[in-house]
Amino acid sequence: MSKSLVPPLSATDFLIASKQSEIQSLEYFLNMGQLVVMVSDLIHALQKERGASNLYLGSRGQHYAEVLIDYTHQTDDQIFEFDQTLKQIQSEITEHAGNGRLLNRIAYALHALANLPQFRAQVQQQKIQTHAAVMVYSGIIAGLLSIVFETADAAVDPTIARVLVALYNLMQGKELTGQERAVGSAGFSSGQFSAEQRERLQYLIDGQERCFELFHEFTEPTSYALYLQYAQSPYRAEIDRLRGLALSDPPLTIDPRVGDQWFKLLTQHIDSLKIVELGLQGHLQRLCSQRVLDAKKTLTQHQALIDTLETHPEESFIVMLSSTQSQNPAALQDYTHPEGFGPKLGRSVLELVQNQAQSLQQMHDELTAARTALEEKKLQEKAKVLLMKHRKLTEDQAHKLLRQMAMDQGKRLTDIARHVVEMAQGQRK
Amino acid sequence: MSKSLVPPLSATDFLIASKQSEIQSLEYFLNMGQLVVMVSDLIHALQKERGASNLYLGSRGQHYAEVLIDYTHQTDDQIFEFDQTLKQIQSEITEHAGNGRLLNRIAYALHALANLPQFRAQVQQQKIQTHAAVMVYSGIIAGLLSIVFETADAAVDPTIARVLVALYNLMQGKELTGQERAVGSAGFSSGQFSAEQRERLQYLIDGQERCFELFHEFTEPTSYALYLQYAQSPYRAEIDRLRGLALSDPPLTIDPRVGDQWFKLLTQHIDSLKIVELGLQGHLQRLCSQRVLDAKKTLTQHQALIDTLETHPEESFIVMLSSTQSQNPAALQDYTHPEGFGPKLGRSVLELVQNQAQSLQQMHDELTAARTALEEKKLQEKAKVLLMKHRKLTEDQAHKLLRQMAMDQGKRLTDIARHVVEMAQGQRK
Repeated sequence: MSKSLVPPLSATDFLIASKQSEIQSLEYFLNMGQLVVMVSDLIHALQKERGASNLYLGSRGQHYAEVLIDYTHQTDDQIFEFDQTLKQIQSEITEHAGNGRLLNRIAYALHALANLPQFRAQVQQQKIQTHAAVMVYSGIIAGLLSIVFETADAAVDPTIARVLVALYNLMQGKELTGQERAVGSAGFSSGQFSAEQRERLQYLIDGQERCFELFHEFTEPTSYALYLQYAQSPYRAEIDRLRGLALSDPPLTIDPRVGDQWFKLLTQHIDSLKIVELGLQGHLQRLCSQRVLDAKKTLTQHQALIDTLETHPEESFIVMLSSTQSQNPAALQDYTHPEGFGPKLGRSVLELVQNQAQSLQQMHDELTAARTALEEKKLQEKAKVLLMKHRKLTEDQAHKLLRQMAMDQGKRLTDIARHVVEMAQGQRK
Repeated sequence: MSKSLVPPLSATDFLIASKQSEIQSLEYFLNMGQLVVMVSDLIHALQKERGASNLYLGSRGQHYAEVLIDYTHQTDDQIFEFDQTLKQIQSEITEHAGNGRLLNRIAYALHALANLPQFRAQVQQQKIQTHAAVMVYSGIIAGLLSIVFETADAAVDPTIARVLVALYNLMQGKELTGQERAVGSAGFSSGQFSAEQRERLQYLIDGQERCFELFHEFTEPTSYALYLQYAQSPYRAEIDRLRGLALSDPPLTIDPRVGDQWFKLLTQHIDSLKIVELGLQGHLQRLCSQRVLDAKKTLTQHQALIDTLETHPEESFIVMLSSTQSQNPAALQDYTHPEGFGPKLGRSVLELVQNQAQSLQQMHDELTAARTALEEKKLQEKAKVLLMKHRKLTEDQAHKLLRQMAMDQGKRLTDIARHVVEMAQGQRK
C-alpha cells in the first residue's frame, strides 16, 4: 500500500459518515417541520376565506363583504409567512437529494397562490358561482396538502414518518370538514338538499372518517386524547343531528336559519381540529430535536470508542467468517480460529458496524408501514380519478363504485384500487 | 406584499429546482457507476485469489504458492484502486442525503479488507482449513456485493435502477459460480462428493439460476445476448456433464484428475461472466451520461419557455379549478370561466408543472418493480437466516425448507419468506 502517500480510508471513516448522514437527515426534518407548520396555517386561513366567500356569494354580495376582506388580509399575511419560510429553507430543500417531487409540489402551490388576486377580483365582482369558487379554493388547498404528503413520504426516520402521516391525515380530514361546511351551508340556506348535494355530503363524511382513522393509527397518544375530547363534545352531537337532517330520506324541508347554526358549529369543529394539529406539530418539532440529540450522542460515543481502538490498534484485529453467503453483513459472524486469536479481541469496530447495519435495517422495515399507508391513499386517489375519467362519474360516484366493488368481491378497497389502476395501465400499453 | 423588499418566490424557481434536483441525482449515479466498476474488479480479483488459495491449501502448500502470491498482488492493486475511487467520490457520497445504509456497507467492506493481510498470513502458514478460508473470502465478497445492492436500491431513475438490479444479480450469480468452483474442486480432487457437498452444490446451482433469471428480467438486450452466447458455448455443456457426475445418485467414484478440468472450465465460465459484467457496466455509464444530457436539455427548454412567459407576464394568468379534491395536482384542471379569460391564455407554466408532476409520478411507479425485486431478495435472505438460527439448519437446508413450504402451500417463495419473517417478529414482541 506504499503507492499512496495518503493513508487508505478506514472503516471508521464511513461508520462515522453513516451516522452523520442520519443526523443531517434528521436536521433536515427540523426544517421540514417548520414548512409544514406554515402550510398548515396558510390552509387554515384559506379555509376561513373560502367560508366567508361562500357566505358573501350566497348573499349575492349583500353580507360578509367586510369579513371576507378581513380574511383575505389574514390569508395574505400567511402567504407572506409561507414565502419567508420557503426563502429561509430554500437552499436546504433545493440541495437535498431526491427532492424532485416535493419541489414540484411547491412550484404548483406557488403558481396557484400567485393567481389568487385575480381570482379574488372575480369573487368580489360576483363573476363566479359559489360552487366554482369553493372548487378553486379547494384546489389551492389540495396543492398545499400535497406538500405535506411529499414531506411525509420523504421521511427516513420511522418515528418522524409516522407523525407526518398522522399529521397529513389530520389535515386532510380537516379540509374535508371545511368542504362539508360549504356543501352544508349551501343546502341548509336553500332549505333543501339536492340528490347531488346529499351524495357529496355522504362522500365527505366517509372521507373524514377514513382520514381520522389513519390519524388515530399513526399519531401519538396526547394528540389523539385531545382529538377524542373534542369528538365527545356536545357540539359534535349537534353536528351529527344536522347531518341527519340533511341526509334524511325522504328529504326534509329545513328552516333556512339552520344554515347559520351549521356554519358556526362546523367552524367550531374546524377550529378544534386546528388545535389538535398545533399539538401534533409541536410534538413533531420536539421529536425531531430529540432524535437529532440522540443521534449526536451516539456519534460522540462511537467517536470515543474509535479513539480508544486507534490508540490500541492491535485490538482491532479480526477475521470474519461468513456462515452464510448472505448479502447482509449483519449475518456475518466473526471467526475465532482455535490456534489463532481469542474471541474477545477487538471486535468493537465490527460490532459497531454490525449494530449500525441492524438498526438501519430495522428503521427501514418500520418505515414500510408508514409509506404503505401513503401509497395506498395515492392508489385509491388514482383509481378514483381513472373511474371518473373513463366512466364519466363524479368523485362521489367513483368512490361509491370502488367501495361497492370491494364489498361485492370481499376484498380490501386498496386491492380493488390496485386492480383498477393495473387494468388502466394494461389498456394504455 | 410590500412587507418584503425581496420579491416573493415564484413557481418557476421551484419548477427549475425540481429539474436540477433530478440532474444532480443523475450525476450522482455517474459516480456510483464508477464505484460499482471498482467493486466489480475487486470482487473478480478476490475470486481469483480465493481459487488459488483453495488449490494451495488443497495441495498442502505443495503447489500454487507462486500463483497465489501473484493473485494476492493483483488483489492489492484492486484494493488500491478501490480506495482511490472512494477517496475521489468520498465527499459526494457522504454529503448525499439518505445514504446511511450505503456508507455502513462501505464501512463493513473496508473493515474486512483491512484484516485481509492477517488472514492471508494464516493461509500461507496453512493454519486455516480450505473450507474456512473459502468462507472468509466469500464473506468479504458478500460485503462488497452489498455495496452494489444498496446502490441499486438508492437509484431514483427507473432505467438506471433496472440496470443496477440486473448488474447486482449478474454479480451475485457470478459469485455463486465462484463458490461452486470451490466446492466442486474439493469434491472432485478427493474423488467423491459427501452428502453435504452435494447439497451445497445443488444450492449453488439453484441460486445461480435465480440470479440469472433476474438479470435477464432487468438487463438490456445487448448484455443478455452476450450472456446467451456464452451460455450456449460447448464448455457450458461440459460443465453440465461434470455437475451430473458430482450429483449422480448413487454417488460415483471420480478420477481426481477431473478436478483440474473442473477448475479450468469454471474459471472460463467466471471470466465470461466478467465480460458480460463489463458490457453491462459500460451500458450503465452511457445510460447515466445520456440521462444527464436529456435532463439538461429539458431544463434549457423549460428555462427558454419561462423567459418568454416572464417577458409577457399577462400570459401567465390562470385560475385553477379542481374537479376533484385530489392531492394529486396533475388531476387539477384549469378553469375557464365563460365571462373570464380564454382557455389558451398562459397555461404554459401550469402545464410545465403538471407535466413534471406526471413524469415524476411515472418514474416513481416504474421504480417500484426494480425495488420490489431487491426487497424480495432481502426478504428471502432474512427468512433463510432466521430458519438457520431457530431450527439449526445449514443455509442449503434452510433454502430447501423454504422451497418445500412454498410448493406444499402452492405459494410464491417470497410470500412464504414474508410469513416466516413476520412470525419471527411476532415472537420477538
